[in-house]
Amino acid sequence: MSGQVEQIAPELEVQEWLNGDPILLSQCRGRVVVVYAFQMLCPGCVHHATPQISRLHEMFSKSDDAVVIGLHTVFEHHDVMGPEALKVYIHENRLNFPVAVDRPTAGSRIPRTMATYELQGTPTIVLIDRHGQFRAKYLGPVEDMSLGVAIGRLLAES
Amino acid sequence: MSGQVEQIAPELEVQEWLNGDPILLSQCRGRVVVVYAFQMLCPGCVHHATPQISRLHEMFSKSDDAVVIGLHTVFEHHDVMGPEALKVYIHENRLNFPVAVDRPTAGSRIPRTMATYELQGTPTIVLIDRHGQFRAKYLGPVEDMSLGVAIGRLLAES
Amino acid sequence: MSGQVEQIAPELEVQEWLNGDPILLSQCRGRVVVVYAFQMLCPGCVHHATPQISRLHEMFSKSDDAVVIGLHTVFEHHDVMGPEALKVYIHENRLNFPVAVDRPTAGSRIPRTMATYELQGTPTIVLIDRHGQFRAKYLGPVEDMSLGVAIGRLLAES
Amino acid sequence: MSGQVEQIAPELEVQEWLNGDPILLSQCRGRVVVVYAFQMLCPGCVHHATPQISRLHEMFSKSDDAVVIGLHTVFEHHDVMGPEALKVYIHENRLNFPVAVDRPTAGSRIPRTMATYELQGTPTIVLIDRHGQFRAKYLGPVEDMSLGVAIGRLLAES
Repeated sequence: MSGQVEQIAPELEVQEWLNGDPILLSQCRGRVVVVYAFQMLCPGCVHHATPQISRLHEMFSKSDDAVVIGLHTVFEHHDVMGPEALKVYIHENRLNFPVAVDRPTAGSRIPRTMATYELQGTPTIVLIDRHGQFRAKYLGPVEDMSLGVAIGRLLAES
Repeated sequence: MSGQVEQIAPELEVQEWLNGDPILLSQCRGRVVVVYAFQMLCPGCVHHATPQISRLHEMFSKSDDAVVIGLHTVFEHHDVMGPEALKVYIHENRLNFPVAVDRPTAGSRIPRTMATYELQGTPTIVLIDRHGQFRAKYLGPVEDMSLGVAIGRLLAES
Repeated sequence: MSGQVEQIAPELEVQEWLNGDPILLSQCRGRVVVVYAFQMLCPGCVHHATPQISRLHEMFSKSDDAVVIGLHTVFEHHDVMGPEALKVYIHENRLNFPVAVDRPTAGSRIPRTMATYELQGTPTIVLIDRHGQFRAKYLGPVEDMSLGVAIGRLLAES
Repeated sequence: MSGQVEQIAPELEVQEWLNGDPILLSQCRGRVVVVYAFQMLCPGCVHHATPQISRLHEMFSKSDDAVVIGLHTVFEHHDVMGPEALKVYIHENRLNFPVAVDRPTAGSRIPRTMATYELQGTPTIVLIDRHGQFRAKYLGPVEDMSLGVAIGRLLAES
């Protein structure tokens, strides 16, 4: 990606943080950040991406190298995927990674961060490098090996 | 199980039927009935039993030998697992088997059929023979092979 | 299958028995017999059917209801799938079910039982009922649930 | 690993190359090299590591960034895991990655490269960096995500 100006990822716009204190991307400089946009009733999230992100979070839980953040970007069936339902989903599945509830947008079904980050659906995994720059965005399932290689590449950067 | 008096399974007490018309057990005589008690946010249901029951339903979809019925027995987190949420779960996961919403019990968190059938949790799979009698009840995960053998035994009865 | 004359399964023609004493089908009357024809280097056997048959054998290991028998029917690459190689395969994979080495046929690549049983390849699972009669033959992968139902039906026969 | 003197991986000592022309590590400078030590009848290889290495090889098949090499290091049951048996294993499983047969050592059950590389068993995955230096050695199963991260880190080095 040399020769290309990378865009700094804007801060997440968050209604509520679950599983921990608020996280500012500006305070994550020096670390690789993985943002996982999901919906709690999206089958591709439930069956593939959420378990994958849990493994990833576990893998980096004792390291200062990477930060894994869930982002609940509800853009359909809003009535049944509110924060109270999400809390049950997190509790029942014993998810440990921090989860940000994307802030709703007045007059639009697309919440704010989802719009700003130009996410097209769920699951989407966004990789942000040690300088806070967008480096990759995966819509739909991505295999562990590919995701690992992409993260490893960013981790190796100083 | 010869020599033992088996109990006739009482009719399901249902608030609402999804994925098809109401089913009376009394009209299922001559067929083996599989009742699958679940909750849409129970991980053991979501990751193991619901896909298993979908396979089972598919397997018998063109046969008159067996009937597969889902029974949504919500006994916790009632606020976020109501019928509207269940409809989204069914739609998103493209479930085709008929689903009965267990009728709530006034003053109790245990819905009616769950109480009558003495179910201890979810997932539970109940097998009813061609005469309408209870024959097996599995709480928690059961392997496909074991479940298949148990159903096959009942199918062979005249 | 009433009204149809079923064929009695002939005895296996065996060069060598591994994992236990020789088994005569005539001595298995009253029990359901599962014969699993395989080759130790056939990927469909190694990755799907052998683990499945191991589960099945484990399931009936404490019952007198069913007998599970492996049958090593080498019809290709004979040089590298002889009894010594098979013993290593069984040892390394900790297989516990009895295995009969199908007796080679002079002048043919198809061993004797494979020819007599008219098996078309591996993996093949053959079901024999309590009367010693052929009842089902599955070439290629069969799902646990389907196999379980078929075995359960035979177990229910007196 | 800065500040540490890494050891240059010696050339593989090979009896025979399968699935392609001989590969010299000295000609792989500038690329990351993955050496996969396996035995064709080792269950951990067959069920986990060989499919994993196949995915890895597929992933880099159109790239000049990494080289994936199988190394058949037979240290037990030599009689039934010779090159002829290995060829059948490769053919039946449609393996596409290049495979080196490790050269036997006179008077020892441990073949030459296995001894030189100080490998303790199979499966073992060895990572060599763009400068030809040993960087990681995994004995036993390693998850796709971890392996991917480790390879990604090496790929990012210039």
